Amino acid sequence: MSFVSAIDTATRRNASLLCVGLDPEPAKFPAHLRGRTDAVFEFCRAIVDATADRVCCFKPQFAHFAAQRAEGALERLIAHIHEQHAGVPVILDAKRGDIGSTAQHYAAEAFERYGADAVTVNPYLGRDSVQPFLDRADKGVIVLCRTSNPGARDLQDLGVGGRPLYQHVAQLVARDWNANGNCALVVGATYPEELREVRALVGDMPILVPGVGAQGGDVEAVVRNGKNAQGAGLIISSSRAILYAGSGEDFAAAARREAQKLREAIDRWR
Amino acid sequence: MSFVSAIDTATRRNASLLCVGLDPEPAKFPAHLRGRTDAVFEFCRAIVDATADRVCCFKPQFAHFAAQRAEGALERLIAHIHEQHAGVPVILDAKRGDIGSTAQHYAAEAFERYGADAVTVNPYLGRDSVQPFLDRADKGVIVLCRTSNPGARDLQDLGVGGRPLYQHVAQLVARDWNANGNCALVVGATYPEELREVRALVGDMPILVPGVGAQGGDVEAVVRNGKNAQGAGLIISSSRAILYAGSGEDFAAAARREAQKLREAIDRWR
Repeated sequence: MSFVSAIDTATRRNASLLCVGLDPEPAKFPAHLRGRTDAVFEFCRAIVDATADRVCCFKPQFAHFAAQRAEGALERLIAHIHEQHAGVPVILDAKRGDIGSTAQHYAAEAFERYGADAVTVNPYLGRDSVQPFLDRADKGVIVLCRTSNPGARDLQDLGVGGRPLYQHVAQLVARDWNANGNCALVVGATYPEELREVRALVGDMPILVPGVGAQGGDVEAVVRNGKNAQGAGLIISSSRAILYAGSGEDFAAAARREAQKLREAIDRWR
Repeated sequence: MSFVSAIDTATRRNASLLCVGLDPEPAKFPAHLRGRTDAVFEFCRAIVDATADRVCCFKPQFAHFAAQRAEGALERLIAHIHEQHAGVPVILDAKRGDIGSTAQHYAAEAFERYGADAVTVNPYLGRDSVQPFLDRADKGVIVLCRTSNPGARDLQDLGVGGRPLYQHVAQLVARDWNANGNCALVVGATYPEELREVRALVGDMPILVPGVGAQGGDVEAVVRNGKNAQGAGLIISSSRAILYAGSGEDFAAAARREAQKLREAIDRWR
């Protein structure tokens, strides 16, 4: 099954557009996990097991594992999701971007080593830097378009041919890069107007929307402006607000409640 | 010592603008190393030891280690360079780019975990995505500007305000991002005209130039167009042409000869 179909199926089965972002930060872990050598894995596993029937996918963030020397935990975590929660796809959020020969190694890392179902990529190096990912029709390629951070405007909003660069990227991906139907875009929740414009350019293509929750994105505006003709096509990601909703031994239950709340808030506007 | 001073010192001491890129590909290793569990480290260590007095720096490419599950080899390799070849800086070529909170984890990974002296970063997410790197005045931040691959033109050549995007990036870095004097740029050897234009915009700032050798960049055009007023300010990187110059047990000696040849070819035009 392709990534886009897998997301659709999980969205329907769990009635959810919510993606839980897995950004482990040991300093924020509950006290009973701190200092354990497998704390990163155990924390994420508990979050995953508590929320898997409430999400359309999970999104582990690469830097949070790499900075902790926890590549092994990342491998085990993705394997655990596939084994215990079959049908819930995993997006490896690594924002890769390098020249063609190197991009092949990054594709091997994401899809063979980690077994991810999709990966985020940066478009600055152009088509051939993304080609080894695009060639994998069974995997998703999620291209940065308009990101959720303040600095996004430095390059992404620059005018090219009468419109901002991020719209050019959206159209490039929709028209030229999506021959295998495996592309998606990243548009931050903090810019709902831009989200509306991107949706108008890309038809039903899935859009990954980070920045709801801790970064302040407005759920109503995101869903209204971002949904496709089927009331779906959105992967709305929240990390910190869910992961660190509780700080005691019941942190996973607190995460489930928070995920449930956000899932319902999203559903209200579909 | 800052990264820029360290490069200057190594350039002078070894009379070299050459950077050896460390892109290990086990399928190309000499037969006697293949199948050894520490092959990635041993291959790179031999190349490093054979060329360290002929280079201004080394540049391990992250994907080539990550795809092999060889993060441990990368840590050991950088530590080996610092211990055995003190004064030769190490650029971690990872092309990082993510929002501020995540960028901090990437900075920790590059500088604390791996102990790199500089890292390559992607500018698409703007200033705050690079800030955690810029804040490290002792470390180098090498920003992608005009890359060496064919797809570079897809975004980097788009006209913004009457000039191509890559020139806008060059000026942004030189004027706004370089308060700590720790920035450099990446401009591919395959585009010498663009290199001349970037040099004109950024004064004496170091420019990392990949693409000499296997990718076909012309040494004379690179040095003539890229050198600064001191006949330096270039970090000319070659990987495959040096690493795989030989395929027998004497591969490191073959790499040294190739490095020596390229160093002399570069020196002819300084």
